[in-house]
Amino acid sequence: MFSGLAAFPLTPLKNDEVDEHAFIGLLKRLVEAKVNAIGVLGSTGNYAYLSREERKRVAEIAVQHANTTPVMVGISALNLRDVLVNAQDAQAAGASAVLLAPMSYQPLTENEVFKLYEAVTATLSVPLCVYDNPGTTHFTFSDELHGRIAQLPQVRSIKIPGVPKDPQAAVERVDRLRALIPDHVSIGVSGDACAAHGLNAGCEVWYSVIGGLYPEIAQSITTAALNREPQEALRLSQQLTPMWELFARHGGSLRVVATAAEIQGLADSPCLPRPLSALAGKEKEALAVLLDNLGLA
Amino acid sequence: MFSGLAAFPLTPLKNDEVDEHAFIGLLKRLVEAKVNAIGVLGSTGNYAYLSREERKRVAEIAVQHANTTPVMVGISALNLRDVLVNAQDAQAAGASAVLLAPMSYQPLTENEVFKLYEAVTATLSVPLCVYDNPGTTHFTFSDELHGRIAQLPQVRSIKIPGVPKDPQAAVERVDRLRALIPDHVSIGVSGDACAAHGLNAGCEVWYSVIGGLYPEIAQSITTAALNREPQEALRLSQQLTPMWELFARHGGSLRVVATAAEIQGLADSPCLPRPLSALAGKEKEALAVLLDNLGLA
Repeated sequence: MFSGLAAFPLTPLKNDEVDEHAFIGLLKRLVEAKVNAIGVLGSTGNYAYLSREERKRVAEIAVQHANTTPVMVGISALNLRDVLVNAQDAQAAGASAVLLAPMSYQPLTENEVFKLYEAVTATLSVPLCVYDNPGTTHFTFSDELHGRIAQLPQVRSIKIPGVPKDPQAAVERVDRLRALIPDHVSIGVSGDACAAHGLNAGCEVWYSVIGGLYPEIAQSITTAALNREPQEALRLSQQLTPMWELFARHGGSLRVVATAAEIQGLADSPCLPRPLSALAGKEKEALAVLLDNLGLA
Repeated sequence: MFSGLAAFPLTPLKNDEVDEHAFIGLLKRLVEAKVNAIGVLGSTGNYAYLSREERKRVAEIAVQHANTTPVMVGISALNLRDVLVNAQDAQAAGASAVLLAPMSYQPLTENEVFKLYEAVTATLSVPLCVYDNPGTTHFTFSDELHGRIAQLPQVRSIKIPGVPKDPQAAVERVDRLRALIPDHVSIGVSGDACAAHGLNAGCEVWYSVIGGLYPEIAQSITTAALNREPQEALRLSQQLTPMWELFARHGGSLRVVATAAEIQGLADSPCLPRPLSALAGKEKEALAVLLDNLGLA
């Protein structure tokens, strides 16, 4: 499950509670598209805003509706105590793997982050993906720290935040990390705008936000890159440039994909946890036009 | 309560749960020292790492043991839904005021932060202090946004993250904010190392971490500054320079004051929520020597 396309759906809300019906609708699209894995309760899955009980329920629903598609469940929390509970809940729900970011309030040290992964992996019976996302966790991994954590039991993948767009620099970035981690640990790219670049540079999996809503286009890009058609992967990704620009303009992908889900009737409006707001007014109208133009709507 | 010294005690843990006995011991020191206000569940109070029930209990214990000292209770959370619940709990516990930071996981926009304060203040029956702490929230207020939020009902103070050490620049910084907010909203300085500078520059209150453990020394600095003895305030603060240097070296004040509390037998070791770690080994020994030298132990 740590290769190909891992699609991360929204956890849409309705009246500040998880909209289970809408969530199931999003899951179905991913199962029908036969993505390689479904990742729930990632950043796009709003894990940071949900209660323990809600997260447990989301994990259960995901496993229940995923059929044979493996489900990876985000277990991150500020407090190790809560991470361990989330890990238990995810495994009890039938998760095939868990995803763990070093979420922070007080800035964390490298040693604290290592001890976090050490404590969690010691309790796991399923594989773990290390979630490196400094834009939300405000923790920056060194490659040396990745190397140490990748030796821990159950660690099977690292979700890196992106790669440089220059092909040579991208290869160097992936090779540098690859040299420090065991062969059984895959490297996955996130940051949708540079996913094609990452896959072309040797990343084995795309941890994809856009793939959580539009799995087919993400699959085309992934397949082209993994079939060693790098130019085709780039061409397909470049078609989505206006989408990547919107992601950059709105502080990341979440507000844009949430708005797209609302536009397509796949989620109620508002579907984000307050105080987060989706796009509105003219920005929402422009996104609707863009989805049409891209053939996504 | 929004002038003078507001002291922010640790919420010490023991076996990953709130150590109520140790917490009551810390509160007693503050009551005996007659600080102007006690601020619980600030960043030093580990609010971000505690459950709703734990936060409710901490607020209740604080009010119960504060006698006539007003208690301000931190209500921040990532999700507005949880902030509103925390506000209800704090008010039900008898809080004299609440403290709200724009805690973030997804980066917040100015508009989202304004709407957060608007929604919360609309429900409050006690005053609110705006908590501006970009080091942990990763949100940077513009002065213009402070001005808009300060007009909302119940807003009575702004806890700013610090001031420049240059006296003229500090006065300019405080005056610029003062010009944008109503007279009934006080400006309080945090960032202990520049508290004397902030009070000398016109801040009316020190929201103090060191004062949560060592109220007397923080009171001396506050009193000197508010009595218009700026040189004496600076002299007293400069005596604590090795402490301020330790704060800077350990990513903020929390790990250092937690270690100091452990050294003095005021909290068990470890007293921080994992994965956070207090100082250990030689660093802890050096802090013990420093506390002795400063006459704090």
